[in-house]
Amino acid sequence: MSETRIIGKPMPMTDGRAKVTGRGKYADDLAVPGMLWGRILHSPHAHARIVLVDSSRAEALEGVKAVAIGRDAPVPYGILPVGHDERVFALDKVRYIGDNVAAVAATSPEIADEALRLVRVEYGPLPAWFDPLEAMEAETDWIHDTKPHNIEKEYHHEFGDVEAGFAAAAFVLEDRYRCGEVTHAAMEPHSTLAVWEPDERLTVYSSTQVPFYLHRTLSAVCEMPMSRIRVVKPLVGGGFGGKSEIIPLEVAASVLAKKTHRPVKITYTREEVFYAHRGRPITIVDLKTGITSDGRITAVQARIVQDGGAYCGYGPVTVLYSGQLLGAIYAIPNVRFDGYRVLTNKPACGAMRGHGTVNARFAFESILDQLAARAGLDPIELRRRNLLRAPCVTPNGLRVTSYGLPECIDRVAERSGWSEKRGKLPPGRGIGFACSHYVSGAANPILRSNMPHTTVHIKIDRDGAVVVYSGASEIGQGSDTMHVQIVAEVLGVRPERVELVAADTGLTPVDLGSYSSRVTFMAGNACLAAARNMRDRIVRAVAGEFGCDPQDLETRDEEVFSAKNPSARMGFDEAVALAIAETGALVASGAYAPPEEARGGKFKGAGVGPSPAYSYSAQTAEVAIDRETGQVKVERIVAAHDCGRALNPLAVDGQVQGSIYMGMGQAVQEEMLWREGRLMNPSLLEYRVPTTLETPEIESLIVESVDPEGPFGAKEAGEGSLAAAIPAIANAIYDAVGVRITDVPFTPERVLAAIRAKEQAEKGSSR
Amino acid sequence: MSETRIIGKPMPMTDGRAKVTGRGKYADDLAVPGMLWGRILHSPHAHARIVLVDSSRAEALEGVKAVAIGRDAPVPYGILPVGHDERVFALDKVRYIGDNVAAVAATSPEIADEALRLVRVEYGPLPAWFDPLEAMEAETDWIHDTKPHNIEKEYHHEFGDVEAGFAAAAFVLEDRYRCGEVTHAAMEPHSTLAVWEPDERLTVYSSTQVPFYLHRTLSAVCEMPMSRIRVVKPLVGGGFGGKSEIIPLEVAASVLAKKTHRPVKITYTREEVFYAHRGRPITIVDLKTGITSDGRITAVQARIVQDGGAYCGYGPVTVLYSGQLLGAIYAIPNVRFDGYRVLTNKPACGAMRGHGTVNARFAFESILDQLAARAGLDPIELRRRNLLRAPCVTPNGLRVTSYGLPECIDRVAERSGWSEKRGKLPPGRGIGFACSHYVSGAANPILRSNMPHTTVHIKIDRDGAVVVYSGASEIGQGSDTMHVQIVAEVLGVRPERVELVAADTGLTPVDLGSYSSRVTFMAGNACLAAARNMRDRIVRAVAGEFGCDPQDLETRDEEVFSAKNPSARMGFDEAVALAIAETGALVASGAYAPPEEARGGKFKGAGVGPSPAYSYSAQTAEVAIDRETGQVKVERIVAAHDCGRALNPLAVDGQVQGSIYMGMGQAVQEEMLWREGRLMNPSLLEYRVPTTLETPEIESLIVESVDPEGPFGAKEAGEGSLAAAIPAIANAIYDAVGVRITDVPFTPERVLAAIRAKEQAEKGSSR
Repeated sequence: MSETRIIGKPMPMTDGRAKVTGRGKYADDLAVPGMLWGRILHSPHAHARIVLVDSSRAEALEGVKAVAIGRDAPVPYGILPVGHDERVFALDKVRYIGDNVAAVAATSPEIADEALRLVRVEYGPLPAWFDPLEAMEAETDWIHDTKPHNIEKEYHHEFGDVEAGFAAAAFVLEDRYRCGEVTHAAMEPHSTLAVWEPDERLTVYSSTQVPFYLHRTLSAVCEMPMSRIRVVKPLVGGGFGGKSEIIPLEVAASVLAKKTHRPVKITYTREEVFYAHRGRPITIVDLKTGITSDGRITAVQARIVQDGGAYCGYGPVTVLYSGQLLGAIYAIPNVRFDGYRVLTNKPACGAMRGHGTVNARFAFESILDQLAARAGLDPIELRRRNLLRAPCVTPNGLRVTSYGLPECIDRVAERSGWSEKRGKLPPGRGIGFACSHYVSGAANPILRSNMPHTTVHIKIDRDGAVVVYSGASEIGQGSDTMHVQIVAEVLGVRPERVELVAADTGLTPVDLGSYSSRVTFMAGNACLAAARNMRDRIVRAVAGEFGCDPQDLETRDEEVFSAKNPSARMGFDEAVALAIAETGALVASGAYAPPEEARGGKFKGAGVGPSPAYSYSAQTAEVAIDRETGQVKVERIVAAHDCGRALNPLAVDGQVQGSIYMGMGQAVQEEMLWREGRLMNPSLLEYRVPTTLETPEIESLIVESVDPEGPFGAKEAGEGSLAAAIPAIANAIYDAVGVRITDVPFTPERVLAAIRAKEQAEKGSSR
Repeated sequence: MSETRIIGKPMPMTDGRAKVTGRGKYADDLAVPGMLWGRILHSPHAHARIVLVDSSRAEALEGVKAVAIGRDAPVPYGILPVGHDERVFALDKVRYIGDNVAAVAATSPEIADEALRLVRVEYGPLPAWFDPLEAMEAETDWIHDTKPHNIEKEYHHEFGDVEAGFAAAAFVLEDRYRCGEVTHAAMEPHSTLAVWEPDERLTVYSSTQVPFYLHRTLSAVCEMPMSRIRVVKPLVGGGFGGKSEIIPLEVAASVLAKKTHRPVKITYTREEVFYAHRGRPITIVDLKTGITSDGRITAVQARIVQDGGAYCGYGPVTVLYSGQLLGAIYAIPNVRFDGYRVLTNKPACGAMRGHGTVNARFAFESILDQLAARAGLDPIELRRRNLLRAPCVTPNGLRVTSYGLPECIDRVAERSGWSEKRGKLPPGRGIGFACSHYVSGAANPILRSNMPHTTVHIKIDRDGAVVVYSGASEIGQGSDTMHVQIVAEVLGVRPERVELVAADTGLTPVDLGSYSSRVTFMAGNACLAAARNMRDRIVRAVAGEFGCDPQDLETRDEEVFSAKNPSARMGFDEAVALAIAETGALVASGAYAPPEEARGGKFKGAGVGPSPAYSYSAQTAEVAIDRETGQVKVERIVAAHDCGRALNPLAVDGQVQGSIYMGMGQAVQEEMLWREGRLMNPSLLEYRVPTTLETPEIESLIVESVDPEGPFGAKEAGEGSLAAAIPAIANAIYDAVGVRITDVPFTPERVLAAIRAKEQAEKGSSR
């Protein structure tokens, strides 16, 4: 495919009009006759035994149709097979303030709320653990009996000879980096409408990133075969990982629908969203890194502790990624990683954009700058001296098939004016640099099987509509548009001809979901295969008619034609009719599974493996520091992102900007503040995501390394740019005011304190 | 398939629970935010030029969002390619009282009604034609300029040597039979919700039997590609042919939705349903038939005039069927047919259960009884002497592949106690006999093409659900259940595992629609082929695992197993996972097109041909006549129906009972009464369909001739039993009181008049 018509061209999102006109339907917009309102009763205790739950008074309230408690749905579940430690309603004890105890379905939300007040629960409070370092030393009152010392999961990996590496280093630095907890803050709160169908099936409309895993979980918890349950994903108003696990309201609504034989809708309040969040955990990174005098990394040692909250969730993956993905970006010959996922009596953390990599990358890109300063090297030059020689397999087993990082670095350096600015900006102003990367999906599915990760079917009938059935979940990232582009390109038709049916387990083949930036790479490849198979059928029929070789036919601009014979030319509708006459409405299929060699790596056992392809990003951030207040103002970010190939540059630009915006929010202002297990800022007024006023100019540069296995060469674009923003800002602060901030976020208090301390130290040393 | 588990067993309808609990959604149950209400302005004149339509005052009314008139949708359409003579709103003139002139979309039904009163229309009245015999002699004021003498279509066919046949006859009778106009009287009024989607697509939910033809027509009239339009059939509350054409409200709602960019719903009032009906036309049959002295038919000559109303509709098919389907039931060596479809200034007639055959069959089965009486033969014996020797091709080109009529006759004769009752019942009581038959779909599609008539796709993914995509339209006849049965039988799974997606042009392959009793035969065959292809894929995978021959594997009771090796046995879910691992979610396809030899026949040119298979029915009716009032009470009907094979005996029994019920209604009490083009009884109070009180005991006997081309041997079951009911009742009246009623319905007035006339004649002759 030498020249493309649709791929690589900016295309507005296919669901854009529905969203901006307000006519699109999100889960909470849905309503059906006879629908009940569900509400959930949450624990006021961080850690307590449940002595008694008495729902009789609530059940007696007029308008209450059902109250569900622990024994109504006792099957435990969790997103990972190794972590089925949650129940929709606590059975034996509650483990965080906000834990789910019961739910009510009633004829109005007001009655449901009133009923919650009538559910009587007796608790037996227990000592609670809030600090991960303390929790992992605990000898008693473990949060889960099966997890001694509250350690959910630990990893200990070593590749190469780390001690020898440090011995060979000219400079070795060691530091501790701390990151606060952040959350996704998606605009759309979680919402689920569960409909009990007249034929005793259950249809669940939910704001989810993972319809397929929800489908499986509901089957288990509701004790119904999957073939009797249908999960439909309506429009989703942002996920960012916060909708990539099973959220208690999804199960609660379903259990209540099954119990009442009525439709039940539950929508979280914003406060509930904060408590249910599954965001990025508090992380403590103890990092040691050595380089030679000419700047080559000799060894890396990281000890990472994550404050996981009360349940497993994605935790083992989060901590695994934080060590595993130290690799695949620079050449690191020797690496040791000790990772701990620790349980505490707070809501469970989970996957958030840049899952696992962000806080470790902050530490790593900070220490590189610290080492560059020590060695007297330009920070960019230091990175250049540690590039991989791709394609390659890293010492820790990651397979790098395409590697646009060198070009990303070059373009950012040039575009940002790096050499004119670093160390040369006016007082209080600085520029910093950092790199990051991310996976293009996990090479192993969460539930191990040898089935493909995604399948796409395409149907064309005599109406000429190209109907694409894909399980992939549009969550705002452009998944739907990507499918339409690929199919229109391959078949040579207008995108308007393509109709996508997506993310409906009743109608579409399975796709594992929108997580780990897997959709473009995996669903895109399945879609491409299906489109090519469909094209083959049509082209063969036309070749038969013209008596020519199918290889000579092209499909473009709604025609099938021979490049060799101008008279051999047929409109798409006619070509379809010809092909249909042979066997009926056309259907073609495509599937994708990562190649075997991408799967295993050296990190087996966590339920996910490394990735078939990695994206890369290089960034500069420019900041202005108010030396009187410590306020950090991010003024400009230039980012180059290697997405393999930009199927839709408009979408890639949007994803890069969004990632950086989110990284910047974590860097300078976002943090979930806890006091004894209670969230101090559970609202969007208090948990401060940046507004447009705080968002700097972001310039994104697209780098296309054309991955050999990606669809049209494409790989990840939605997460990889996030992680670099935080250290780039930290490094810029250092350039501006000479202080190294190791605690995220870089609040005015912290920056000011560091400036004051530096001034004190300078005063002391000058004295 | 020696022994079946699901096929042939009674199975409740899959949509039964939704219907009886009231939770199922018919088109008028649907509502979406921002929906407008549409109402249509109808002509008060039977025939008039439109001088002016001024909608300005209506448009100015607050709450009115659009008024549509003729020039807004000028593209003519019609169900047959030869009859595109309708426009959704009359452009030049109106042709019947009730013709459509304009439509309004407003924010409430009341405002829409008010707006209709504000549309100013000036008419120039024209002479109108109400009687078909007068209309076909007209020299001026033709209803359509292109149809001289108001003759929509005429057919003149002769097979064999009719004159020689009559010359060879021992007895020849000639009579005129008249049938009044009847309508479907489906419980659900027509309703359409047209939704203009944010992405500029049009989704139309409509109570239709023919989503595919509606799809095509909307594409033409709305001037949008079919790929931008989606037609969805919700639950349909009865069709019987009345929803098998494009109904004006379907186009009106769509035009208004496109004009307003809003959702628009139109539901007909019951009066509008009566005027829009497209039912069975007034028919005048002049029939001449000769038999030998031993009762063999030598020749048949029929002249049939149908009062078609103002537009073509299905008219040419109705009149063609009335002649063509004189064949394929008895051996008729010589036949002449002259058929006329005549235009009049009344609503168009069309297809109604038993389409085309009913009134001709009434005449034919009546004259056979008259001939039997003349020849002194038992009426059943007369039929037995004229049976076909199937398989055969009739002189008029109909291909009979299976023929259960002899068995039907035998079983009815025995079960009814015919020989003990005929001529031997008490005064005023009688028993009559008649036969009928029907097509199993038309061998040629309405729109000629060499594409299959129906395609079915099946998907199975790792959730184990068997998802069947079929365009076939459930209209209460059991289409959905039939699909589920076939797939469950072939794959050897529980019906609960099968999920059907049907009659949604956006999701399903094309099926031509629910008309001409084509669904079980055609969609059933496509479904069977798809299921067998799917089974092959699964069985091959399992055979690979077991290292056995796929031929040795059976699929039954949720297992795949070897009949030869008891240890080679695998659950269905596991078998599916195995097959999915190879290529991704399984998809299989099947299609059906009638064999070439069934298509042409000798009646080309009407847009439909004969059928790939014919059903047969034999019936007795017992009546009691009130000699004082002429009231006919039908007391018992015994019917044997040859449906090839009863896939679902429960459904077949229901269809046979429903057909007979409808035939009985036409026989004794239903009639649309017209005065100068105005319907005198446009309500269900005045147009009297039988209630349960008037419905006799109906006993249905299923005869299985196992058609070689039908799915599991099945053929038509939903219409063929209707036609025999009317002549069986007529013949029973003759047996009871010795009068021959040739005008349908057999009202008390007509029966009483005949009894009085007979008494007068007997008095005269005895005097």
